[in-house]
Amino acid sequence: MTGRTARRRVLQVRVPAGPGGGSRADLLAVEEPLEIRVGGEPLAVTMRTPGDDIDLAAGFLASEGIIASPSDVTSIKMCDDNVADVTLGAGIVLPAARLRRNFVTSSACGVCGKDSIDAIRVRASYDVSTDPVQVSPGLLASLPDRLREAQRVFARTGGLHAAGIFTADAALLAVREDVGRHNAVDKIVGWALRGQRLPLAGCVLLVSGRASFELAQKALVAGIPVLAAVSAPSSLAAELAEESGMTLIGFLRGGSMNVYTGARRLTAAD
Amino acid sequence: MTGRTARRRVLQVRVPAGPGGGSRADLLAVEEPLEIRVGGEPLAVTMRTPGDDIDLAAGFLASEGIIASPSDVTSIKMCDDNVADVTLGAGIVLPAARLRRNFVTSSACGVCGKDSIDAIRVRASYDVSTDPVQVSPGLLASLPDRLREAQRVFARTGGLHAAGIFTADAALLAVREDVGRHNAVDKIVGWALRGQRLPLAGCVLLVSGRASFELAQKALVAGIPVLAAVSAPSSLAAELAEESGMTLIGFLRGGSMNVYTGARRLTAAD
Repeated sequence: MTGRTARRRVLQVRVPAGPGGGSRADLLAVEEPLEIRVGGEPLAVTMRTPGDDIDLAAGFLASEGIIASPSDVTSIKMCDDNVADVTLGAGIVLPAARLRRNFVTSSACGVCGKDSIDAIRVRASYDVSTDPVQVSPGLLASLPDRLREAQRVFARTGGLHAAGIFTADAALLAVREDVGRHNAVDKIVGWALRGQRLPLAGCVLLVSGRASFELAQKALVAGIPVLAAVSAPSSLAAELAEESGMTLIGFLRGGSMNVYTGARRLTAAD
Repeated sequence: MTGRTARRRVLQVRVPAGPGGGSRADLLAVEEPLEIRVGGEPLAVTMRTPGDDIDLAAGFLASEGIIASPSDVTSIKMCDDNVADVTLGAGIVLPAARLRRNFVTSSACGVCGKDSIDAIRVRASYDVSTDPVQVSPGLLASLPDRLREAQRVFARTGGLHAAGIFTADAALLAVREDVGRHNAVDKIVGWALRGQRLPLAGCVLLVSGRASFELAQKALVAGIPVLAAVSAPSSLAAELAEESGMTLIGFLRGGSMNVYTGARRLTAAD
């Protein structure tokens, strides 16, 4: 079993030279490749922090639109510390074209933002635009601290992204950490899929960094109506959120937030 | 020509409700897919911030070990805002196996960290372990501010990673920004390759975020002896740096830094 942290000697240097420097032990977040196989055939390799690997494999396949429910998967087995082998359910097949086009560098499918959005929309099983959830700004403002408290490995290494899924009344359903922010979200999506919790209607997904197109896409595939990020969203994340009726919040920190899309879901500031 | 920033209306909300809230215009970092073709055939799609796309395409191919000098490329043309087509030089071919294994989700090649490191070492043309460069802690401590000052788009959007390449006497050779930190580094590598500046011997590469395995790999492929990151390195980045004789510095901020490998290149703290 590969751990989530690794110990190394590190030389701490201060400028100007001062107390506290010198050699000491440091904990690093572990990064190792996970190979995801389908029916024994290598499909993708992702650099991730070990842990929740079955969820990661399931979430990756769900994010790519290959599976949508637990019955779409017969089994997911770790055949090595760093190899997950997925056996798809009867009738579930890998789209051949997807192997050539989509699993390259990113999950983008088209050559312009609009193409990408169109392709993602086709993949998404859920319509988040009709989700009637309402969330209060006060609740949203409290979430970053709650996510940070739940990040056990980050506290020790400072080197991990996190994703947390909350209900609209602030219950933390799950938190996952990873060196890759897309992996942290895939682990949440896989956890939800395997536990028959999809769609994650009425929920808020909080990510510790920026909101990219890829993260908005994963939230959409999981039927999550509200995506909040501690840092900035990208243009394409905002466009996807707008077109799909998702609420997108950025710069959620220090009691302030920017609402990019779907402000109708926020109650009046308390 | 696609821009690097996009304007959107945003609703700013404060908790408790206070001055400064309300609707205003905001600038977002643009994220659009870039399709990299080789000889007209799609090879990879990466989500990037437009700009320096020719460098990005060249750097991507260099990072993957496909090209190593300007003569390995006959031409790189933008055949669309978001499509770069590369014509390889005579005798340069895409390894078929690489298409199946490596261009999937990440550039990792193996199923354990050791396999990945071995595969990367084979690809790297340069031996950074013998680079005699010496850098002072004071100079290193000054670099994050210099990188931030050079980040034009970040200053307006807060949404971009940056990579800067410096000489050991603090000259800033190039800075590149992108929504993807790997793209920012690929843009640096491509800039250096196209300008016949490889290997970047005696140089320091500073990245605005964390140092992952992938970033250490790109630095190694470009022959860069010192990789510094404002945030944490991963375990595998430190392992690759150690095995290749690269100096790896993390948490470079506020006049402090952690030296993970290659401390012999640091002069005594001034």
